[in-house]
Amino acid sequence: MSDSMSADAGTRFAVDVYAARLARAAELTRAAHLDALLITPGPDLQYLIGSRAQSFERLTCLVIPSSGETPAVVVPKLELAGLGASAAGELGLQMLDWTDGTDPYRLVRSVLNVGARVAVADSMPALHLLPLAGEFHAMPVSATPMLRQLRMTKDAAEIDALRRAGAAIDRVHARMGEWLTAGRTEAEIGADIAAALVAEGHTGAEFVIVGSGPNGADPHHEVSDRVVEPGDVVVIDIGGPVEPGYFSDSTRTYVLGEPDDETAAAVAVLERAQAAAVAAARPGVTAESVDAAARDVLAAAGLGDVFIHRTGHGIGLSVHEEPYIVAGNDLILEPGMAFSVEPGIYFRGRWGARIEDIVVVTEDGCEPLNLRPHGLTQL
Amino acid sequence: MSDSMSADAGTRFAVDVYAARLARAAELTRAAHLDALLITPGPDLQYLIGSRAQSFERLTCLVIPSSGETPAVVVPKLELAGLGASAAGELGLQMLDWTDGTDPYRLVRSVLNVGARVAVADSMPALHLLPLAGEFHAMPVSATPMLRQLRMTKDAAEIDALRRAGAAIDRVHARMGEWLTAGRTEAEIGADIAAALVAEGHTGAEFVIVGSGPNGADPHHEVSDRVVEPGDVVVIDIGGPVEPGYFSDSTRTYVLGEPDDETAAAVAVLERAQAAAVAAARPGVTAESVDAAARDVLAAAGLGDVFIHRTGHGIGLSVHEEPYIVAGNDLILEPGMAFSVEPGIYFRGRWGARIEDIVVVTEDGCEPLNLRPHGLTQL
Repeated sequence: MSDSMSADAGTRFAVDVYAARLARAAELTRAAHLDALLITPGPDLQYLIGSRAQSFERLTCLVIPSSGETPAVVVPKLELAGLGASAAGELGLQMLDWTDGTDPYRLVRSVLNVGARVAVADSMPALHLLPLAGEFHAMPVSATPMLRQLRMTKDAAEIDALRRAGAAIDRVHARMGEWLTAGRTEAEIGADIAAALVAEGHTGAEFVIVGSGPNGADPHHEVSDRVVEPGDVVVIDIGGPVEPGYFSDSTRTYVLGEPDDETAAAVAVLERAQAAAVAAARPGVTAESVDAAARDVLAAAGLGDVFIHRTGHGIGLSVHEEPYIVAGNDLILEPGMAFSVEPGIYFRGRWGARIEDIVVVTEDGCEPLNLRPHGLTQL
Repeated sequence: MSDSMSADAGTRFAVDVYAARLARAAELTRAAHLDALLITPGPDLQYLIGSRAQSFERLTCLVIPSSGETPAVVVPKLELAGLGASAAGELGLQMLDWTDGTDPYRLVRSVLNVGARVAVADSMPALHLLPLAGEFHAMPVSATPMLRQLRMTKDAAEIDALRRAGAAIDRVHARMGEWLTAGRTEAEIGADIAAALVAEGHTGAEFVIVGSGPNGADPHHEVSDRVVEPGDVVVIDIGGPVEPGYFSDSTRTYVLGEPDDETAAAVAVLERAQAAAVAAARPGVTAESVDAAARDVLAAAGLGDVFIHRTGHGIGLSVHEEPYIVAGNDLILEPGMAFSVEPGIYFRGRWGARIEDIVVVTEDGCEPLNLRPHGLTQL
């Protein structure tokens, strides 16, 4: 693993990491009695061969036969050069290039046996899925059962990348007082935060939410021209990728000046709810039990109705991925799973608060990757 | 239409534009003997209701019954506020919001009759398409035949937006000498160009290709740390959106200093090929005939083998959309269709050149929206 570890800060891991993932993907596909996985550009392709290809209307598709035969990549001739940055070459994959005017779906089928039963990546657009279904004379199934089993459980190199992402976003939150001051607009503050994300080690700012005053009551607010005022409660939810593509995501709630008693009390309950969910996250329990741990604390304090979303989402090469920490998800947590724990409270037209850490499940509990103080932070 | 026209520079058109599009979409769907269109976030949703929603794992879906009944939007409660910027409210659409833990696919079905036959947007990911197929007990079909008929033919407000986009990118090309100089890296030059795209009226820089010397031979090269040298031929292919979301896309080829005779001669042929394709674009001819017009000129000069891609792609709310100007596409061109005409020549390891205009088909020919000089531009 030393090769893999040393490559951590690069644009992809070492080739042995991808070889192992491809072999395991083929194995899981075989166990599911399917003949192949078909993976178009997106985080699954990045996970499996380290490719960041982004083609949309021209088909790029990794074909992984469950037989264990060498996988193939169907790729537009134009985009062949772009695959050079991935592990495809070193892995010795079969490259099947095609030019405009030929049928790439037939090329996918040519790799497999007649009547093959295939599973497709979640991100595959209808544009490609419908013709592939026609080519195989059957509705493909979702590759998620196979891929989430792989992607949900992070290996040491991935956890290291998530730790670096967590430390980077913590450094941004630590500097929040530099930018979050009364008299500035959310958009101005957000632009400074976005620049700081990059300065502190991210390759970009994926999302920057500055929800001040009433805007904090909308969990999906981004930024606006609202001028932040003294006394405002402000939700700051920020994140971005660090190489080789793993995301940070952390929320803290700030107040400009002295909070009133009602606000301070409600955020204190939220802090306990978030801590309860982190304490509940360990191997052997269900995803929904972690959601319930946060929800129960808020409900007991009469704040159940203002917690209007799930407690969290998995994170890795995607900002949102499996496992989802939500009522109804009876998935059993295992060591290596990484997800957000982010309960929030929302008072429409007035204010909101949210506290979010990424945690990784360990052998006997979980490791939070965000270590900034959790309570209402006075600026 | 005056309301629509005055709203051109805003984030969406006036409500009557969307009402007409929805009615026409329902009509085309009925004519195709289908019961409904299902549209998830992407350019089709933006086209139909002016929404820029970007949700991925939580289903947002516009349901347009072909019966002419009021369309509905299935939307996560969390993202309801975000739909406010679209025309959904003014259009009086039925809003069906859902919260985590409930089944949004069942909600889609509830709008329609049992056994409904549905068509889906090209961009719908497998994540949503597979469960919807399960819900309707049948493989959906592609909505493209209906939507491309609508989206391919631009109305006056759209053509005006594309004209503004064309003028904006022409202003950037006109300033190329400010940035494209020997001794700078492609990445440095690209960063300046990206800033200029915004300064000249784009809301962002969607793509910036600076292909200098041998990098010009890769049509999909973006930028690199290569230092541009005296004598280099440099392909500059740039574009971005202008409000309300319509794209520019224009390529010119520059040379730093005096070109050698062979280069000058080859680019002169390319210029003739591009002009021949523009001259061929008019109502009543096929898309592939426009491709052939460019290809024939290059082939006659012995450059057929180095023109390795199609001649063009439609453009509008997407950078790449129907109609594709490619061999095998026998679509008949009609007034209002907008697409790129961009033949190129590529000499691997040495240099490349490409010339690209956006054109709009008129009653008796086409109107090029990019007016900068087409030949090899000496800097």
